[in-house]
Amino acid sequence: MPATIDGARLRRRLEELAQIGRTPEGGVTRLSYRPEHAAAVRLVAGWMRAAGAAAAVDIWGNLHGLVPGAEAGLPPVAAGSHLDTVPNGGIFDGALGVVAAIEAAQALRDAGTRLARPLLLLGFAEEEGTSFGVGCLGSLGVVGRAPAPETIHARDGMTAAALLRAFDPGVARAPLSPAMAAYLELHIEQGPILASRQAVLAAVEAIVGIARAAFTFRGQANHAGTTPMDARRDALWGAADLVAEVRALARDTDGRAVATVGRLTVAPGATNVIPGAAEMAVEVRSAEASLLAGLRAAVEQAGRACAGRYGLGLEMSDWRAEPPLPLDAGVRASIVQAAGDLGWPIATMPSWAGHDAKILSPQVPAGMIFVPSDRGISHSPEEHTSWEDAARGAQVLCRAVERLAA
Amino acid sequence: MPATIDGARLRRRLEELAQIGRTPEGGVTRLSYRPEHAAAVRLVAGWMRAAGAAAAVDIWGNLHGLVPGAEAGLPPVAAGSHLDTVPNGGIFDGALGVVAAIEAAQALRDAGTRLARPLLLLGFAEEEGTSFGVGCLGSLGVVGRAPAPETIHARDGMTAAALLRAFDPGVARAPLSPAMAAYLELHIEQGPILASRQAVLAAVEAIVGIARAAFTFRGQANHAGTTPMDARRDALWGAADLVAEVRALARDTDGRAVATVGRLTVAPGATNVIPGAAEMAVEVRSAEASLLAGLRAAVEQAGRACAGRYGLGLEMSDWRAEPPLPLDAGVRASIVQAAGDLGWPIATMPSWAGHDAKILSPQVPAGMIFVPSDRGISHSPEEHTSWEDAARGAQVLCRAVERLAA
Repeated sequence: MPATIDGARLRRRLEELAQIGRTPEGGVTRLSYRPEHAAAVRLVAGWMRAAGAAAAVDIWGNLHGLVPGAEAGLPPVAAGSHLDTVPNGGIFDGALGVVAAIEAAQALRDAGTRLARPLLLLGFAEEEGTSFGVGCLGSLGVVGRAPAPETIHARDGMTAAALLRAFDPGVARAPLSPAMAAYLELHIEQGPILASRQAVLAAVEAIVGIARAAFTFRGQANHAGTTPMDARRDALWGAADLVAEVRALARDTDGRAVATVGRLTVAPGATNVIPGAAEMAVEVRSAEASLLAGLRAAVEQAGRACAGRYGLGLEMSDWRAEPPLPLDAGVRASIVQAAGDLGWPIATMPSWAGHDAKILSPQVPAGMIFVPSDRGISHSPEEHTSWEDAARGAQVLCRAVERLAA
Repeated sequence: MPATIDGARLRRRLEELAQIGRTPEGGVTRLSYRPEHAAAVRLVAGWMRAAGAAAAVDIWGNLHGLVPGAEAGLPPVAAGSHLDTVPNGGIFDGALGVVAAIEAAQALRDAGTRLARPLLLLGFAEEEGTSFGVGCLGSLGVVGRAPAPETIHARDGMTAAALLRAFDPGVARAPLSPAMAAYLELHIEQGPILASRQAVLAAVEAIVGIARAAFTFRGQANHAGTTPMDARRDALWGAADLVAEVRALARDTDGRAVATVGRLTVAPGATNVIPGAAEMAVEVRSAEASLLAGLRAAVEQAGRACAGRYGLGLEMSDWRAEPPLPLDAGVRASIVQAAGDLGWPIATMPSWAGHDAKILSPQVPAGMIFVPSDRGISHSPEEHTSWEDAARGAQVLCRAVERLAA
């Protein structure tokens, strides 16, 4: 009998998990190391145990549960995602990947499938970076790249160290080793691409690189009445032109890059004063390293041109850049074969957002499966994925686990 | 002997007045109804008395001093400006017009000139509107158009009523009547026009009209990575385009209007989130009512076009508008003749900023004399006017007073 995902239970469990941190708007606020997170870990640990896994929590608050394999001494195949949410986020982001991994383990168990390798179920903490401004803190901790918990602070001033010490979900404590044969993560796309293509599934080929820099235009704050137009050095003129240039540069890549100005502030910011300074953040993403580098240079050149046009000064911060990260070709092949085994078409696409898979990837062969997000909406109570698509994603995850752990 | 301004004393007195509220940067912070304002009123009241005027303060904190005229029953010719400053403002804005009026009275007295009309010396309070957000509060009070002092608040929560009650400069209290034959105000231009023309003096023909509105573009806040460029409804795209359109519309008027976007805020304002809303303030100024109306309509049309281009919603506030206000032609003629009497060329120009003369103007025939501002800088410690220009302005004021009060 092939292992078959119980779609109804997958839904029931996701809906039960979504009750923890439920908001009046119908979203979920489950911030890492807070009571809602502890309650979620406790609930999910119970499901892990039911699936035959010994559940534990590591020093970073990551929940992990190991289902033993048939052969001794092999590193496990891991599957999971994260248990934290953004404030008032959706019920699928992260939670789907954790619950689907457990459902896969349960399905394999119920089908009597004996895997050679152990199966490691994972529920990472603090992927969203909401509490401390450090995204993927839990998975960074696993690979030894997290900042010291004494040095990072939540908004209320609590250090991560203090919150971690106080974090007590009532589950055994045990370290989590990055020694894994593979890591598989099912996740919602969080964008509109699969939904618009009417494709159901995608195997992720790479996590896009991200480059961010701040551009500050400096002009001369002055009286908005007495300063003639041709005597103005209005910092906002430069910044507004750069907003348009950034859009045009990204559009010219035909979908191979995106660019965003998400932050723009004007000083002094009074109705009757010409802006003396305008600061903006430019973010560029692409799965192609050379394209990303070219866009960075083009944005810088455009910034200088916008400043020169109006006699403005321009300060550019250094770029904070993370390069594009190709995911493991072998794991991706297993995902594609798993979909093929089930008779389902599967696309390939980059992930435009970061994920725990990205953090593990340099040390662990990692792969991701995407399912569609209705209207591309995520980080919102309106986030939704059809239950059929969610179950299909879990089924492909289950089959890929079976292939990789056989 | 003609009445002659003592330029050295004018300078000495302005510099002495500038010591009250002196800032480390070399500017002046003299906010209305605060101790610095009281000290300034006390100092200036002494100079008024020396010039033969009985000094008093009205219920709005306006300092006034009447030099009796030779004939009974005639309304006075008034001259002055304001005594308050913006935070860290310059030493000429307002103060020059007050001290120059006193110097004119002193020069007329020293020359033994007998004027038929009384001469009313004025030092208005709260022209800058810094304390309560109501510009020209003192002169509005004189003409019966000020809001009730119980209803307006300073940033520290104090009402104008409480501050006015506590305001005690140690000067007699007496009401100030708007029954004036004329009002003359010498002021720095606060713009670069006279300095760039190398003209020394200007008679102001009108105070420009001002129209202000808020434009809010509404799109869809979304993930800056997972949302393709062609699926975005980025509110900042609309706002940035409107910044450029506003600039172009004002530039096309060849100096007959100015327009400014001084305030622009983006929500949610995070580097990795596409702006869902962008709010901006548009201000338009012109001395020509029809041009101002045309610009308002053109900015609205441009706003709709910018919103339509990117599938955005647009909310426009009502315009808060003050129409252009021509100053009195007869008073302006007296100013031009006064300059002619002295053999000095004088230009005419609009005032691009509001002044107490604007407030009095509907009830009192009002005129203004401008002297150049170095590099057009005002509301700054760098504000400066050459002492020679300041004395020339005071001399024209003196001669115009003599003509109007003869």
